[in-house]
Amino acid sequence: MVNLELTDAVVLPERDVILEERSQVVDNRPSSQLGEQARAMLYQHYPYRLPVIGWRHEIQKFTREDALTWYRRHYAPNNAILVVAGDVDVARLKPLAEKHFGPIPARAVPERWRPEEPPARAARRLTMKSEQVGTASLSRTYQAPSYRYGDSGQAYALQVLAELFGGSTTSRLYRQMVIDQPLATSSGAYYDASTLGPGSFGFYTSPRQGRTVEEAEAVLDAAIEKLLADGPTEDEVARAKQRLAAAAAFARDSLRGPAQALGAALAIGRTIEDVEAWPKRIEAVTRDEVVAAAKAVLKPEASVTAILLPKPTS
Amino acid sequence: MVNLELTDAVVLPERDVILEERSQVVDNRPSSQLGEQARAMLYQHYPYRLPVIGWRHEIQKFTREDALTWYRRHYAPNNAILVVAGDVDVARLKPLAEKHFGPIPARAVPERWRPEEPPARAARRLTMKSEQVGTASLSRTYQAPSYRYGDSGQAYALQVLAELFGGSTTSRLYRQMVIDQPLATSSGAYYDASTLGPGSFGFYTSPRQGRTVEEAEAVLDAAIEKLLADGPTEDEVARAKQRLAAAAAFARDSLRGPAQALGAALAIGRTIEDVEAWPKRIEAVTRDEVVAAAKAVLKPEASVTAILLPKPTS
Repeated sequence: MVNLELTDAVVLPERDVILEERSQVVDNRPSSQLGEQARAMLYQHYPYRLPVIGWRHEIQKFTREDALTWYRRHYAPNNAILVVAGDVDVARLKPLAEKHFGPIPARAVPERWRPEEPPARAARRLTMKSEQVGTASLSRTYQAPSYRYGDSGQAYALQVLAELFGGSTTSRLYRQMVIDQPLATSSGAYYDASTLGPGSFGFYTSPRQGRTVEEAEAVLDAAIEKLLADGPTEDEVARAKQRLAAAAAFARDSLRGPAQALGAALAIGRTIEDVEAWPKRIEAVTRDEVVAAAKAVLKPEASVTAILLPKPTS
Repeated sequence: MVNLELTDAVVLPERDVILEERSQVVDNRPSSQLGEQARAMLYQHYPYRLPVIGWRHEIQKFTREDALTWYRRHYAPNNAILVVAGDVDVARLKPLAEKHFGPIPARAVPERWRPEEPPARAARRLTMKSEQVGTASLSRTYQAPSYRYGDSGQAYALQVLAELFGGSTTSRLYRQMVIDQPLATSSGAYYDASTLGPGSFGFYTSPRQGRTVEEAEAVLDAAIEKLLADGPTEDEVARAKQRLAAAAAFARDSLRGPAQALGAALAIGRTIEDVEAWPKRIEAVTRDEVVAAAKAVLKPEASVTAILLPKPTS
């Protein structure tokens, strides 16, 4: 946290490593290329529109001085969270933390200012064709509240919604699109509430050989409309809550998982109490809340639909 | 340029004026709302994605201090261009300029840094429905070079292309879509090269009553494909150049037009020579250059198609 020495001999090869990572993870992977472009469209203003790894042409220009500037600006003890998981208690840990980190003086860190996202007014779509792609796929993402942005009271109902609608092979979407009619090879929903800024709620599906993206999208749209019109059943809500609780219990069954969850929550300004109250909050979600959250979020004008298509080699 | 006094009594009512302007020009005009959202999608990174007037929620928070900060940062004499048009010559003007502006000391102004736009990889679309809209319309915009960004050698050929393809009622698009087949009430093309950052090349059309946006788009797409396959005729190129020259001569026939053109050119780092050479550069454009520029720019993956549809009042 202090006394970092950086030389070009350290920084420049590391920059190449990041460029190589970007090549592997984004630039040579059509679904990631499309995802990056879709993300840039989901938000008009909020910086989540920018790729976390950075744009290639900007990474190429990063210097040792850029890295040091970042380090000096943000790597202060008053801007850090220490999470320790293991066979230890606070009585033993606190003196150690004070001994090792206490002497490092606090420094001014920049205010954590974020822009506000303006209203979304138009349904957006993007289509990419690639010779590297074997089968078509579709994703639909909606701007959504998160634990810390927008109508954050809906964050729990949205987790239940994503789970019951498309969180597993027993969920609605999978049953309808993969099992009942052999239309798609995959189909699901996801939601991420753990962000300081706006969250996102999404669907994905990939049509089977011989079926088209248009067919898959039509069935997906019909399923969403039906959900909005009739809502889920009480039973779907109850089973989704059970599955979420089971998954959370499973995630606690490691050292690293809970530590990471706590650190991530604290980093976006949540509290340990928030994290510990999660099972109760999920349990308290009602069917009506799920319906209200679905209606608030699943609006076409807040959505981006990204379609990836195979391109015949010419 | 110096000694500005700003009080809340001046700034706050002016802020309301800007909010009112934004209401009239954007927020109550569906085509502008859609245009604003389309612009935010045309560029993933370059700041032209942001509305010049600002987002409403940010204007609302502007303070007197924000205005002064901007003023102090940019309103330096070494960052200003004085253009005088009228019955005057440099011998008489220069001493006056020196007398009135000379005493104002130069100040440090921030470096004019701009990000580079990453590659566009996916054709983008957005659709907005509004009860305020009577007839449907479509616009298609492509990222393009400008006088100062990208392959700026193409800027002249692109002006000829926009003119011959859709610059007037004698151009291809208007003939095909409005006259030959009664499909649209309007149809045209435009291109703006006068930007420091990336330019944009665009098409627009509005279907007649009883015809759909899909039909209009299909004919537009076919016209673009034909243009890319066969190119324009020599005659089309020659007549477009004549029309551009005539329009430029007409624009010079005022005091304000040329002054503004020169000021705008200098503000993006062009020279007076560039502006004066414009007629020759347009005249020198060849049919092959128009074809090459069209092929370089009119790529689906660099485009945004914005569709505005009437929404039945419910």
